[in-house]
Amino acid sequence: MTPPLDTIFTNARFPDGIIYDIGVADGRISTITPMGSVALEAKERIDLGGSLVVPGFVEGHIHLDTSFYGDKWIPHKPCTNGFDVHERVAFQHQNMAIAAPMIERARSQLDLCVANGATAMRSHVMVDGSVGLKSLKTILQVREEYRDLIDIQLVAFPQSGILKCPGTAELMDEAIGIGADVVGGLDPASFDRDPVAHLDIVFGIAEKRGVDVDIHLHDAGALGVFTIEEICTRTRALGMQGHVAVSHAYGLGDLLADAASRAAEMLATSGVSIMTNAPGAHNFPPVALLRAAGVTVFSGSDNIRDSWWPYGDGDMLGRAMLIGYRSGFYTDDELAAAFDVVTTAGAKALRLEGHGLTVGARADFVTLAAEHIPAAVVAVPRGRSVYKAGRLVARDGKVIR
Amino acid sequence: MTPPLDTIFTNARFPDGIIYDIGVADGRISTITPMGSVALEAKERIDLGGSLVVPGFVEGHIHLDTSFYGDKWIPHKPCTNGFDVHERVAFQHQNMAIAAPMIERARSQLDLCVANGATAMRSHVMVDGSVGLKSLKTILQVREEYRDLIDIQLVAFPQSGILKCPGTAELMDEAIGIGADVVGGLDPASFDRDPVAHLDIVFGIAEKRGVDVDIHLHDAGALGVFTIEEICTRTRALGMQGHVAVSHAYGLGDLLADAASRAAEMLATSGVSIMTNAPGAHNFPPVALLRAAGVTVFSGSDNIRDSWWPYGDGDMLGRAMLIGYRSGFYTDDELAAAFDVVTTAGAKALRLEGHGLTVGARADFVTLAAEHIPAAVVAVPRGRSVYKAGRLVARDGKVIR
Repeated sequence: MTPPLDTIFTNARFPDGIIYDIGVADGRISTITPMGSVALEAKERIDLGGSLVVPGFVEGHIHLDTSFYGDKWIPHKPCTNGFDVHERVAFQHQNMAIAAPMIERARSQLDLCVANGATAMRSHVMVDGSVGLKSLKTILQVREEYRDLIDIQLVAFPQSGILKCPGTAELMDEAIGIGADVVGGLDPASFDRDPVAHLDIVFGIAEKRGVDVDIHLHDAGALGVFTIEEICTRTRALGMQGHVAVSHAYGLGDLLADAASRAAEMLATSGVSIMTNAPGAHNFPPVALLRAAGVTVFSGSDNIRDSWWPYGDGDMLGRAMLIGYRSGFYTDDELAAAFDVVTTAGAKALRLEGHGLTVGARADFVTLAAEHIPAAVVAVPRGRSVYKAGRLVARDGKVIR
Repeated sequence: MTPPLDTIFTNARFPDGIIYDIGVADGRISTITPMGSVALEAKERIDLGGSLVVPGFVEGHIHLDTSFYGDKWIPHKPCTNGFDVHERVAFQHQNMAIAAPMIERARSQLDLCVANGATAMRSHVMVDGSVGLKSLKTILQVREEYRDLIDIQLVAFPQSGILKCPGTAELMDEAIGIGADVVGGLDPASFDRDPVAHLDIVFGIAEKRGVDVDIHLHDAGALGVFTIEEICTRTRALGMQGHVAVSHAYGLGDLLADAASRAAEMLATSGVSIMTNAPGAHNFPPVALLRAAGVTVFSGSDNIRDSWWPYGDGDMLGRAMLIGYRSGFYTDDELAAAFDVVTTAGAKALRLEGHGLTVGARADFVTLAAEHIPAAVVAVPRGRSVYKAGRLVARDGKVIR
């Protein structure tokens, strides 16, 4: 027997082109039936007008604590001599002192992401000797405020290094204790200068606390691959396949074909996923090759209008377009792959429970004015409605509370 | 004495941050005065509400004849063995047979561009043995229809080669005779297999007809540079500095620093401009290096949803973002440079008369919801109003006739 429904969403065009009725009870999809084929009763009936219905977007990598989005314009200042993470972190500290309160900036960024259709997110939050757990506590508070709008995973992110910044290892461990979900890392070799010690700490906390790992890795070519090998080795040794991600992994974009295939094979076997935001002026991981090898590739906005760069719009559909644009994805299957990166693959990397348009899944979905998914990826239509647990949370770019 | 004004646009925030009144007479800017500082009389008074006012965008490279925009979705089909321009042209011929009438598709694309803020455009139009002058005649008709909305230059484009497709040289010459403004070309070496003969024909028509040149050049590395050298030599020999453009010029993106600088110097000395759309999965010209050397770099959407690729939105502000994104432009000056590429530099490359926000210029401008130009480039705000010769021609994405 069909359970009593809260809402029937009728006239919902699925990616397969068929128009369905979606029955929702207790925030979950309990029925999906071709429109009008089954008589359904519910407290509320919402006509989606034949819009394309897609799963909620997964914002897999963002920094809620450091964006200026919604704040005054703070001009970018380049590093004195080429790119230097230390100098950038110092610039970020200066900017945080003149920026609006973190909680307001985080809310602005969350409103942007929710309005664009993200229903789940992984945010890195800086934990280091200077800010301690202060930023994390602020973002934990915001997460609570937004709990009915978006699911948020928080990564304890050692922006100033672990070994370079005494006390950070303990703070990261404590961060997990007070509510962070994932343990982070940052360029174990180039930044912290001791990849073994850095990774031992990261995986040590993960093992002790039973949490996932997501490591920022900007290192190029062979150095990046060396670190990825070390990450894969530890992942397999601890039986953490499916629980570890490497963010950016630029080095994978520097490899010739055979070396890239070997790295992809290793990542697939180790169950280590790769996050790329398809950067514009940088080599980046070969998305198609990795996916073909069975690697989970997910994506995120990364920085939005912050001390690292001025770009970003918090739109994961636009991000799918950029992934396709940068990867040379032209066919319908390729465009659908770019869309998968920001939805299903993202959900897999974040191990989200109940993501997708299936019976039993959470009723988190977005309506789009597009004929089908490939058309949505190239056109990036606006005018979306966003539903979280069956409730309208945003329409036409505005969050509804 | 101030001439009698048709319209006063008040509360217009210029890129310099100052709020002005703009007086327009006969479609041109006749006064620019700090708001309220001078008493002005006019038939009509329009309050721009403090919006940022910027010059109309220059869409410097588009194909009005071959887009499917506004038509049914036609899936992309990759070439059988790598990229092959001949195979692509054949695929395009097939698609043109099943697509909606060219005039409808061209109108859809023009509406898109006008609504996004383009007030001037250069479109390549295929001229070859199979289509003859038919496409050009259709696009000439559309140009006439849109004459009050956007200025359009048309390039007689030998999509099937000049030497490879007998009769094309004569057709291109005839194309200029019936209204095309610019003579085109296509990969003189890799496609037509005889760069000297190809360029002799192109520059021969240009010299005979007194028109500008704009050559598609996809060739990589040294082959691309060889062709550019030949183009520069002919440009200087004919005194055509400022009248010649190379579109795409991917080869410039393959060069190491010293070779790139030498090429830039040659282009600057020869007055040959470079068009790039900042492609996603391809090396492309080094925009900052070229600009620093004094080369005019302009941009365009290129293909929009056609047989070559499925991307494109006809938004030159979004294109400025992509140029900056792909070029690693982060500072305010760099973001302003990306904006210059789609406005002032575009106007220079197309030799547009009266472009810009100055007294005497044509009253072609766009209002943006942005604090200043760098913010507009990263945010790509919608909700624009577009004025052509002082008349509102589009608002919020809709063309007003």
